[in-house]
Amino acid sequence: MKFNNINVQISPKAIIGANVKIGDNTVIYDNVVIGDNSIISNDCIIGEPLNDYYFSEEYENPKTIIGENALIRSHTIIYADSVFGKNFSTGHRVTIREKSKFGDNCRLGTVTDIQGYVEFGNNCWLHSNVHIGQQSKIGNFVFIYPYVVLTNDPTPPSNICVGSTIGDFSQIAVGTVLLPATEIGKHCLVGAQSLVGGKYEDYSLIIGNPGKRIKDVRDLKSRETGESHYPWPYNFQRGMPWEGEGFDSWKKSNGYEND
Amino acid sequence: MKFNNINVQISPKAIIGANVKIGDNTVIYDNVVIGDNSIISNDCIIGEPLNDYYFSEEYENPKTIIGENALIRSHTIIYADSVFGKNFSTGHRVTIREKSKFGDNCRLGTVTDIQGYVEFGNNCWLHSNVHIGQQSKIGNFVFIYPYVVLTNDPTPPSNICVGSTIGDFSQIAVGTVLLPATEIGKHCLVGAQSLVGGKYEDYSLIIGNPGKRIKDVRDLKSRETGESHYPWPYNFQRGMPWEGEGFDSWKKSNGYEND
Amino acid sequence: MKFNNINVQISPKAIIGANVKIGDNTVIYDNVVIGDNSIISNDCIIGEPLNDYYFSEEYENPKTIIGENALIRSHTIIYADSVFGKNFSTGHRVTIREKSKFGDNCRLGTVTDIQGYVEFGNNCWLHSNVHIGQQSKIGNFVFIYPYVVLTNDPTPPSNICVGSTIGDFSQIAVGTVLLPATEIGKHCLVGAQSLVGGKYEDYSLIIGNPGKRIKDVRDLKSRETGESHYPWPYNFQRGMPWEGEGFDSWKKSNGYEND
Ligand SMILES: CC(C)(COP(=O)(O)OP(=O)(O)OC[C@H]1O[C@@H](n2cnc3c(N)ncnc32)[C@H](O)[C@@H]1OP(=O)(O)O)[C@@H](O)C(=O)NCCC(=O)NCCS
Ligand SMILES: CC(C)(COP(=O)(O)OP(=O)(O)OC[C@H]1O[C@@H](n2cnc3c(N)ncnc32)[C@H](O)[C@@H]1OP(=O)(O)O)[C@@H](O)C(=O)NCCC(=O)NCCS
Ligand SMILES: CC(C)(COP(=O)(O)OP(=O)(O)OC[C@H]1O[C@@H](n2cnc3c(N)ncnc32)[C@H](O)[C@@H]1OP(=O)(O)O)[C@@H](O)C(=O)NCCC(=O)NCCS
Repeated sequence: MKFNNINVQISPKAIIGANVKIGDNTVIYDNVVIGDNSIISNDCIIGEPLNDYYFSEEYENPKTIIGENALIRSHTIIYADSVFGKNFSTGHRVTIREKSKFGDNCRLGTVTDIQGYVEFGNNCWLHSNVHIGQQSKIGNFVFIYPYVVLTNDPTPPSNICVGSTIGDFSQIAVGTVLLPATEIGKHCLVGAQSLVGGKYEDYSLIIGNPGKRIKDVRDLKSRETGESHYPWPYNFQRGMPWEGEGFDSWKKSNGYEND
Repeated sequence: MKFNNINVQISPKAIIGANVKIGDNTVIYDNVVIGDNSIISNDCIIGEPLNDYYFSEEYENPKTIIGENALIRSHTIIYADSVFGKNFSTGHRVTIREKSKFGDNCRLGTVTDIQGYVEFGNNCWLHSNVHIGQQSKIGNFVFIYPYVVLTNDPTPPSNICVGSTIGDFSQIAVGTVLLPATEIGKHCLVGAQSLVGGKYEDYSLIIGNPGKRIKDVRDLKSRETGESHYPWPYNFQRGMPWEGEGFDSWKKSNGYEND
Repeated sequence: MKFNNINVQISPKAIIGANVKIGDNTVIYDNVVIGDNSIISNDCIIGEPLNDYYFSEEYENPKTIIGENALIRSHTIIYADSVFGKNFSTGHRVTIREKSKFGDNCRLGTVTDIQGYVEFGNNCWLHSNVHIGQQSKIGNFVFIYPYVVLTNDPTPPSNICVGSTIGDFSQIAVGTVLLPATEIGKHCLVGAQSLVGGKYEDYSLIIGNPGKRIKDVRDLKSRETGESHYPWPYNFQRGMPWEGEGFDSWKKSNGYEND
């Protein structure tokens, strides 16, 4: 239904892999490289030119690299000069600015807004309507829920731009704001609607406005089982590389033996 | 200005009612049924195929039913497999996922994001930028204001998915998060920017982070009149079925005699 | 790349200035006036007809005036009956409803939603995903950060609509809600994720949920310098009319001698 070759514009300077589908009304600009078996759905813009394009005759679009097996849903805008690993997927109307780096198996939800100059590891899942400020550095297996904002200017407006860092496996629940330069360790959980600044050790449970570490996340018991759900990789497998095998076995052969 | 039949795509398998207008660049996919006298504005997608479409040759689009007199504004995406009562309207860029059920006279504001697998009664008004997680169950005459989020996973990420319920006539003010499985009774008011979990009786006024019931909503006096504004149906009529007649008279003949 | 004259629709009743570029798939409706040297990028809608258009045969689109040197990015929708000063710019997917007035040099970020019936002075910068309710009145050099919401109905739903006012140079940090009729003086800073109501004098630092004035913003010391960053115009020049000259000198010849 979506792939009728209606109003598709593909730059002759783009490189489109084998078996790629491109939806109606989608535009692929100069110097975009799309990996094999990818699907770019309808009404997307890939390789959106940077600001200079509007003002300079000599503008040349930087390279944009999308790995194999991507699934980009409709109305998504990806600026030029970003790199995405394999199996990248987006919801609708996602915006990704330049100099964004994503590892493999990352997913971004509808309306999520990546401000550029950010780095994500592998297997990060951002849900709908997440906002990531510039200079954020995110590890692997980090999930961020709707309406979370990562900031970078401590005294706005200023020329300071210090992003937050989030360690592997940490989870940031809905509606939370991370103040500039916040450091969240590994395997943390930041509760919903929190306002968080400062530095937190691994396995912290952080909640509140202002946010505080209230306990070790391993001491948070599930209402269903009475056992701790965290570290969650032992209890959640869907879509994870340890699906079937289990985290315990997987981690040893994948560089996470200490997690 | 909007209805020039430019780039309109309508599936031969869609059923379009009498006197329906469809705006430029709008796509209506297979098995969509649109009720009489509806307006689908420009650049909309109605009957967006589900995820399987991308991966299965045999995919068949489920039915999508939009009642009579709808007004869908531009750039709205409605997934297949949802049902909408009469007089349904949306702002711009609304996203509605599959298995969403809306009664009559519902309105959704710009950028609002319905995650699917939800049920709304009649006359619900969601303003701009509301996010409704799966398994939410909302009564009648519930109004939800901008940047409210209804969640469903208590310990993310997990396989638990328990939505919130909101009773008839309740109001959820801007920026509030409802934690998973929250139960809001009838005629409640949840104040702005609250973080709410747990179960609340009818007529509760709930505010704060963490949110607490601070009093009976009928004890909240209006600064203008010194009288209570709540239960609001006695004091607000615009667009309501009791407009002109008054709530007191209307409720008796419409099944709300106890409200 | 964007200006190929593909699917552009311009009403014969629109007035397009000299040296204006209009991107592919953009629609300019009746009675829009676009100033010289402006760029309207692809997939925009300028002069979106008001609600009456859908219901009245005699509907006539009110005037929309965009000053010279505008840069409107893709997928932005600007309703008819608004006025914008020179050098106006937007990100992607901005929505601006009718009866919005913006001075010179204003910027709106991606997905920002202006509900109409609002007034902004000069040099206001709204970042991504800001929501401005009707009847808001904003001064000059006011910057508003992502996910801020300005409300207007104190006891929803009601027929009362009282917007907030924000004085010159004030800054509203991310995720903050201003309750209806809030009055923020000049040179204030409202901290991130605050819930603010009431009236605040000039130079207030306001934070928290519920928000309180905690001190004079001039007493907030920068971690870098140990000096106060506020009033920020003395310490921030990028894109400001005092760039190069300095605020101290500029303000005397520009009507801000008391700031
Ligand atoms: C952090 C979290 C897991 C805590 O849940 P919990 O341990 O079940 O907490 P409880 O509901 O038992 O509450 C314990 C106390 O902490 C308070 N509290 C709970 N979560 C809070 C939060 N995020 N911020 C501030 N206070 C919080 C409760 O009000 C309660 O206070 P009380 O003892 O005075 O009544 C939960 O708040 C959370 O954020 N869940 C994630 C929701 C989400 O975003 N899911 C993903 C999207 S669907
Ligand atoms: C719940 C609500 C109606 C309470 O308003 P109110 O009774 O006028 O409250 P007041 O302004 O008199 O404040 C009473 C106290 O409660 C606090 N308070 C008010 N609303 C609060 C809220 N949402 N959360 C936490 N505290 C709140 C005030 O700071 C004040 O504290 P103080 O006595 O220490 O100064 C109001 O907060 C609200 O949410 N209004 C709806 C706004 C909205 O979203 N409208 C729809 C979109 S336009
Ligand atoms: C208002 C602000 C500047 C205060 O920062 P600060 O003076 O550095 O504050 P500190 O981090 O030293 O914190 C002082 C105390 O106030 C608390 N606090 C700080 N900001 C707070 C806020 N917004 N709300 C509630 N409490 C806050 C801290 O938790 C700390 O409490 P403690 O003493 O109990 O630990 C900061 O909160 C803020 O909002 N920055 C702007 C972020 C932003 O939106 N930038 C623009 C987008 S990038």
